[in-house]
Amino acid sequence: MIPSTLEIEALVDRALAEDLCSGDPTTDALIPSDLQGKAVVAAKAEGVLAGIGIALAVFRRVDPTLKVTPLMRDGASVKPEDIIAELEGPVASVLAGERTALNFLQRLSGIATETSRYVQQVAGYNAQILDTRKTTPGLRALEKYAVSVGGGKNHRRNLGDGILIKDNHISALRSSGVGLAEIVRKARAGAPHTLKVEVEIEDLDQVREALDAGAELLLLDNMGVEMMATAVKMARGRALTEASGGVRLQNVREVAATGVDLISVGALTHSARALDMGLDIV
Amino acid sequence: MIPSTLEIEALVDRALAEDLCSGDPTTDALIPSDLQGKAVVAAKAEGVLAGIGIALAVFRRVDPTLKVTPLMRDGASVKPEDIIAELEGPVASVLAGERTALNFLQRLSGIATETSRYVQQVAGYNAQILDTRKTTPGLRALEKYAVSVGGGKNHRRNLGDGILIKDNHISALRSSGVGLAEIVRKARAGAPHTLKVEVEIEDLDQVREALDAGAELLLLDNMGVEMMATAVKMARGRALTEASGGVRLQNVREVAATGVDLISVGALTHSARALDMGLDIV
Amino acid sequence: MIPSTLEIEALVDRALAEDLCSGDPTTDALIPSDLQGKAVVAAKAEGVLAGIGIALAVFRRVDPTLKVTPLMRDGASVKPEDIIAELEGPVASVLAGERTALNFLQRLSGIATETSRYVQQVAGYNAQILDTRKTTPGLRALEKYAVSVGGGKNHRRNLGDGILIKDNHISALRSSGVGLAEIVRKARAGAPHTLKVEVEIEDLDQVREALDAGAELLLLDNMGVEMMATAVKMARGRALTEASGGVRLQNVREVAATGVDLISVGALTHSARALDMGLDIV
Amino acid sequence: MIPSTLEIEALVDRALAEDLCSGDPTTDALIPSDLQGKAVVAAKAEGVLAGIGIALAVFRRVDPTLKVTPLMRDGASVKPEDIIAELEGPVASVLAGERTALNFLQRLSGIATETSRYVQQVAGYNAQILDTRKTTPGLRALEKYAVSVGGGKNHRRNLGDGILIKDNHISALRSSGVGLAEIVRKARAGAPHTLKVEVEIEDLDQVREALDAGAELLLLDNMGVEMMATAVKMARGRALTEASGGVRLQNVREVAATGVDLISVGALTHSARALDMGLDIV
Amino acid sequence: MIPSTLEIEALVDRALAEDLCSGDPTTDALIPSDLQGKAVVAAKAEGVLAGIGIALAVFRRVDPTLKVTPLMRDGASVKPEDIIAELEGPVASVLAGERTALNFLQRLSGIATETSRYVQQVAGYNAQILDTRKTTPGLRALEKYAVSVGGGKNHRRNLGDGILIKDNHISALRSSGVGLAEIVRKARAGAPHTLKVEVEIEDLDQVREALDAGAELLLLDNMGVEMMATAVKMARGRALTEASGGVRLQNVREVAATGVDLISVGALTHSARALDMGLDIV
Amino acid sequence: MIPSTLEIEALVDRALAEDLCSGDPTTDALIPSDLQGKAVVAAKAEGVLAGIGIALAVFRRVDPTLKVTPLMRDGASVKPEDIIAELEGPVASVLAGERTALNFLQRLSGIATETSRYVQQVAGYNAQILDTRKTTPGLRALEKYAVSVGGGKNHRRNLGDGILIKDNHISALRSSGVGLAEIVRKARAGAPHTLKVEVEIEDLDQVREALDAGAELLLLDNMGVEMMATAVKMARGRALTEASGGVRLQNVREVAATGVDLISVGALTHSARALDMGLDIV
Repeated sequence: MIPSTLEIEALVDRALAEDLCSGDPTTDALIPSDLQGKAVVAAKAEGVLAGIGIALAVFRRVDPTLKVTPLMRDGASVKPEDIIAELEGPVASVLAGERTALNFLQRLSGIATETSRYVQQVAGYNAQILDTRKTTPGLRALEKYAVSVGGGKNHRRNLGDGILIKDNHISALRSSGVGLAEIVRKARAGAPHTLKVEVEIEDLDQVREALDAGAELLLLDNMGVEMMATAVKMARGRALTEASGGVRLQNVREVAATGVDLISVGALTHSARALDMGLDIV
Repeated sequence: MIPSTLEIEALVDRALAEDLCSGDPTTDALIPSDLQGKAVVAAKAEGVLAGIGIALAVFRRVDPTLKVTPLMRDGASVKPEDIIAELEGPVASVLAGERTALNFLQRLSGIATETSRYVQQVAGYNAQILDTRKTTPGLRALEKYAVSVGGGKNHRRNLGDGILIKDNHISALRSSGVGLAEIVRKARAGAPHTLKVEVEIEDLDQVREALDAGAELLLLDNMGVEMMATAVKMARGRALTEASGGVRLQNVREVAATGVDLISVGALTHSARALDMGLDIV
Repeated sequence: MIPSTLEIEALVDRALAEDLCSGDPTTDALIPSDLQGKAVVAAKAEGVLAGIGIALAVFRRVDPTLKVTPLMRDGASVKPEDIIAELEGPVASVLAGERTALNFLQRLSGIATETSRYVQQVAGYNAQILDTRKTTPGLRALEKYAVSVGGGKNHRRNLGDGILIKDNHISALRSSGVGLAEIVRKARAGAPHTLKVEVEIEDLDQVREALDAGAELLLLDNMGVEMMATAVKMARGRALTEASGGVRLQNVREVAATGVDLISVGALTHSARALDMGLDIV
Repeated sequence: MIPSTLEIEALVDRALAEDLCSGDPTTDALIPSDLQGKAVVAAKAEGVLAGIGIALAVFRRVDPTLKVTPLMRDGASVKPEDIIAELEGPVASVLAGERTALNFLQRLSGIATETSRYVQQVAGYNAQILDTRKTTPGLRALEKYAVSVGGGKNHRRNLGDGILIKDNHISALRSSGVGLAEIVRKARAGAPHTLKVEVEIEDLDQVREALDAGAELLLLDNMGVEMMATAVKMARGRALTEASGGVRLQNVREVAATGVDLISVGALTHSARALDMGLDIV
Repeated sequence: MIPSTLEIEALVDRALAEDLCSGDPTTDALIPSDLQGKAVVAAKAEGVLAGIGIALAVFRRVDPTLKVTPLMRDGASVKPEDIIAELEGPVASVLAGERTALNFLQRLSGIATETSRYVQQVAGYNAQILDTRKTTPGLRALEKYAVSVGGGKNHRRNLGDGILIKDNHISALRSSGVGLAEIVRKARAGAPHTLKVEVEIEDLDQVREALDAGAELLLLDNMGVEMMATAVKMARGRALTEASGGVRLQNVREVAATGVDLISVGALTHSARALDMGLDIV
Repeated sequence: MIPSTLEIEALVDRALAEDLCSGDPTTDALIPSDLQGKAVVAAKAEGVLAGIGIALAVFRRVDPTLKVTPLMRDGASVKPEDIIAELEGPVASVLAGERTALNFLQRLSGIATETSRYVQQVAGYNAQILDTRKTTPGLRALEKYAVSVGGGKNHRRNLGDGILIKDNHISALRSSGVGLAEIVRKARAGAPHTLKVEVEIEDLDQVREALDAGAELLLLDNMGVEMMATAVKMARGRALTEASGGVRLQNVREVAATGVDLISVGALTHSARALDMGLDIV
């Protein structure tokens, strides 16, 4: 998912408003408004670059006269001291945009970097690494884009672009005596015809029941790898399988070895560490 | 900093719009709109709770008829299975708000939890743990609030509520032959009279120069603990000192032992892991 | 698709702003602000009611003290002089909201009414009537809701909740020598795993090619009913079929008779006539 | 009324957000982001073109690098296969904007076309064709513009740019014993001095009463053509007359023949059929 | 013109955002969040009250639990120490809203007060005091409301609710050789039929020419009182007359004595002094 | 404080929307859309220019094809007939932007002019003229900028960029038995470390108490000049002093003579008269 110009503009405006709502008195007091200069954005850690577009959009928004030149592209591997972009123009404008631009760049690069680690771990297996909807409120489009930059695949971008019957749907209907198979059939009948039906599964009986009812995707939630391997075999040719819950960098390869098609990892977006970056006036 | 009602409403609306822009077809297909139910929000890990207000505001915004009852307050210690809040009303509304509410709650509680770890590490010393402006774009008010819930103190909320002369200001003026002392004096003269002047310091000569020029706060950036202890002594009674750069949970106590007044930690906001939470229909 | 509270509030505010941006000088000049009165919203033609919720939200937004009572529900059949809702309170507020409320109600009821005509025409056949993305800019959520009230089913709400390979995708790739089967396979591999792949089809060779490549939905565009009937038979058990293009009330039954699963009709939203309604002070 | 740049930008942004809130996964999966192409927007029915400006603004907003060339102007007569505009640039951007651009263009051209039919019907008579405030919520500026493109004249754009005393005002005041003449006089005294006073009239007694009280415009609502002709004669030289209610393409000429000055037709905006248009990659 | 709920809410939100974008650290540091208290809003000068509604809306927006009680109504005469409203609830909320509420109240009361002075000056004459479009950007609806509270009448609220041919229109057309009479006729023909045609007049020849061409309002701009009296006589029964330009409190009575119908005064809104008010915790 | 591009764009859009929400029918009726012309913005009174940037931004926003040339800069002294800017392009666009541009320019220049009068009055003394937060709601950034153009210094831009303990804070805490010294100490401990602590003072005992408690700024509110001179002496070297309350052009020099460091004047923003300006088509 590539964020649109509209989304990027709105995010940049909100972020700048947050940092500049009382102006920049330090710079006002010290830096003459006509002082020109050059600056570089540089990596300070190893990882995968993501967000150069929005970071530079921040500077352009602060001051359209700033000359902004990207030297690397999203997806590139960076290491400390790599120059990612150059800026030239009014120093006061560079300083006004610095923190906001870096905040975007560090967070998105952190997500891309973390994703790429998971992707490398499962190399050689069939499984694709998926994100989840456990994203930072307001930044989902950006964060999902960062996951794709890191080599991951995007799961649902919102509640509307996939049918996913979760444990809470099943619990809510259980009291009315509606069972799993009926739920799957009801979803297939009532849901938009463009969406596949995925259902959360806890054991092998449910795998069978869901497949017979026509589920097209099985979400194997918090399942041990042995049971998962069996579930994957049962589903082969009938439904795709997705592993979720408790997946960490330490165990993701083991999960992939079950033959599962997809592995979703909330931590890609909710717990990735920022990738360290800096801006230096040169 | 307690986020205002206006800020919370705006954030909730944007977050919900992001998740619900195509509706919730799974729930539409399965859950009768008049099906009532109860649900609980529960912790799934140990930590410090933050964000219960905005999480519940999400549900109220989705459906004002939902009965929403907090059982714990921000700042409380939580452990797995602690019930944080109860919800009662239309199941479809609970499900529509679930992910968005949890995304706020998990992120903010993650930040509060991480902050509280740093605060505990420096117990017995004078130093206060500070956040930075390295926050998630758009969420600064919330994230700084979470830091305060975790026992930290807030540094500048935006570029306008403090004078902080950083290395980039100094570099930019160096080419014009303006030295540190002159920069500090210029800032004192030109900045708003309500703001103190803080300046980034790299060595002990600069400490002396800055103090003589009237700096009211010294930012000791990436300084070894021995030099820092000396700087702190030099500044005592003349300026507050702030340590920043490379502070981690492992070394924060050692930094505090220098007698520094403030320790700022970017990782509180840019790299805190989410605190695991769940919602269960009961 | 049920529009959310957020969507309804935003639409109401924009619509009211449009009509009231210069105030209401007629009412200001004539109606004392404390003059109380009653009014009814009544049908003036036969059809299916849709939009009562948003119409009444208009009045509540103009004046929260207005007592607003719906007497009929969306989906109800109305005939001239049926009372749909009652209003009680300041007459000036009723008059300020009148036109905006009716504009919503008449348009949405017009769409529901038109949809119900198509649905009645295909009674006894398998086919479901679908809307399209040919909606009024800004009102898609409301208009798709009106289609569902009229008994239709919603096609994609936006570009993101279904994969639909249209003639323009195929044309754009033809110059690169990419054929239909390869396109379908590429879509299956690259698209989100939650979405089915639908492809626009022009003749029976393409039906075969698309099915063999794994298409899950066939869009039979502007196809004669005989060829369509053959295509439907070929697809049975392998893919759902959707008829589109040139469907009118006059020929929809004939199209349904081919056994097609879905019939999409742009005119439901782009060319439905408003259903006549009125508001009377009583 | 020519919509301003501000209005057009806001409408384009809202419409694009609606269609692209989940991205465009079909195009993402199939069309390389650097694939260049040409496309044409072409008419597929006969009518009057309106909205080319906003349609092309949609494409420019999606991608400022798209080369967008209008070949016809608003007000032109179009017939099937007429090329209205050419586009050149990234195919993915063309496809992202296609539906939104066409939705504006088809709706506005439909309104201009319908208006032009009424205008032609009354050729040779004095009467001008007027729109009403029965417009699609949120699109009034555009729809009134389309009416003017089709040769119609605009009635009030909002409640504030004309005094129109309608039956509901009269009903509301009747209970207080205030009669028509007094109402007209009160409006003349209390309303802004820049606005004329128009009053809804049901019979010839009211025509007399209103004229004597100084009404400057008479709205002859749902009046038979004979009575209308009499009313028109009574008003000549003292007030303009406007026919409204039940005017259709079939009877509008007959209404014009009464000598009435203005004929308002809600159906121009609330019930015009879209004019069929298409976009083809070439 | 009474500002709508929507307008008031938007203005309140923007004003509060401006003052609270960095929170209220003074209050945070000093006032316990559960400290309850009472406060009064009191006049500190003599004048006419306007804006009590929006002032109290500010407090309600800051904190819906605040009990807010108006003791006087817009239009009331106030003198120092008059209590205008009482507040009861969390002291922190009172302090957060104080400045914003007073800023609205003082400005609007200042305008109402200044207007009332002009109105009193012309007592006994026919003339009404009018505002202009020389209002504070963004606050026009409020400021025009304050004028009406002070006894003035509103001129155009925006460019769309009146036809006013000004010197710049005339200058722009002069080069094309179009004269005043033709301009007036063109305006009558081309303008919306609901609007009267007003034209700016500089001398008595133009009065004649404009009247003959059908002007319905004459704007007598910067005209001496003798010429104005003549112009008024010439226009009597054919058009209303409006004096504008150079009207001050010192000379307005003299202007009114010419018999002119309307006197517009830009200073009502662009140069009124705020009326002093205060808020006291009691 | 220099308003950012984002702030200026938002203010321009809102102001234009306010004036153009119903279009410009006078110009539509009279001025051909392709009529080109020139115009000048000229001063009509003596004063200090402020706001030329936002005034010209208004015209550029109305029509990017307008050629807009500033001839003077903010801070320049203007006198009647000075040409401030030239415009060239479509006359209709010039007329659409005229009033809005002038409203900004006149208000801001009025504030700069009034400020410069106070600044001139205190020439030769140490005191700086400060604004307050008594600004027009929504325009604070602009108005504070105008103060700085006029030679004044800005006080707090919002509640967050300074600690100011006012009489209401003190009153609210008095009932809990908390005295001035304790309040000052509490503020120093609890407030952000980047902000100085200012406290409102009524008599000399409080001066002593506040200084001893560590107050860094003293607000001498409504204090006679003799007592003020004593207070200033007591504070010298320990805290800056600010005079406020009842300062007028007539007495400001006398206040400055006390040696006070800062003099805040609410009237700079809440009661400045607009500086007269005009736009002429040439």
